[in-house]
Amino acid sequence: MSKKDKKEEIKEEVEATEPTTEESVKEVAEETSENKELQEALERAEDFENKYLRAHAEIQNIQRRANEERQSLQRYRSQDLAKAILPSLDNLERALAVEGLTDDVKKGLEMVQESLIQALKEEGVEEVELENFDPNLHMAVQTLDADDDHPADSIAQVLQKGYQLHERLLRPAMVVVYN
Amino acid sequence: MSKKDKKEEIKEEVEATEPTTEESVKEVAEETSENKELQEALERAEDFENKYLRAHAEIQNIQRRANEERQSLQRYRSQDLAKAILPSLDNLERALAVEGLTDDVKKGLEMVQESLIQALKEEGVEEVELENFDPNLHMAVQTLDADDDHPADSIAQVLQKGYQLHERLLRPAMVVVYN
Repeated sequence: MSKKDKKEEIKEEVEATEPTTEESVKEVAEETSENKELQEALERAEDFENKYLRAHAEIQNIQRRANEERQSLQRYRSQDLAKAILPSLDNLERALAVEGLTDDVKKGLEMVQESLIQALKEEGVEEVELENFDPNLHMAVQTLDADDDHPADSIAQVLQKGYQLHERLLRPAMVVVYN
Repeated sequence: MSKKDKKEEIKEEVEATEPTTEESVKEVAEETSENKELQEALERAEDFENKYLRAHAEIQNIQRRANEERQSLQRYRSQDLAKAILPSLDNLERALAVEGLTDDVKKGLEMVQESLIQALKEEGVEEVELENFDPNLHMAVQTLDADDDHPADSIAQVLQKGYQLHERLLRPAMVVVYN
């Protein structure tokens, strides 16, 4: 039974018993002090019952909201740190693109890169998809004319990778797009 | 006024008025049905008042706990990601220690290193202090004999840096210590 049903049911019950009480009191003693006391006590009981039912409903609301907030904090907890380490990933990519790296250095850089990507992945951070241009995920910094081989909205080049944390965008991919 | 005080005050009030009510009811009509009804109504009022006061106190407890939990989640939100990127920092340090790096590569590695350290710092992650051996922060993987120049508990060498998130240890520093 929902809380609202319960509340209404008890309210109806109180309303249903009140007239009967009034009648029987009137029969025995018209407007005695006991009658007044009884009315006050019944009102007081109803008042606190309603307060209690409201407080009870409030408890469930507070717990539900706290639970939702906790889940959201958990889900996006790594957002700031993840965002802050994306430039390190960019720098690593640039360093790896330098000509004439020794194998040792290249291996070292790749290890750092892979472990960063893995750490981010475990927290739910991944590169945004690049199949077709999507203004929600990509920023077009340049456009090229579309032709038969390159349909409109296909991506010509990625200038900087984009990342998202679960479904939340951390930064868009910077792309060149056919238009 | 604390909730406990309030609860007790109201309870005392209810207890204080009960005997008076009983006496006046007895004076007018001994054991009438109104008397019984009144007693029931008073009990019902007291019952719901207590339930209400308990629910009210519970609301405040739930809100306090939710607040504490929220603060703790915020404070330590980066713990897992931070821990996971510490090996990348170790690898960067090792890569920088390799002989014969070109200036470009060295500069690139240092940029990555600095930006990672900065990102961690902004989330409250810092290297553990290394002044004197502290079993809460350091793990002694080797000991050397202490002498006049090297007092007991001073640290001879750091084999791997330790990190903490605020006051919470992420991993201890691996050290060689005089003993």
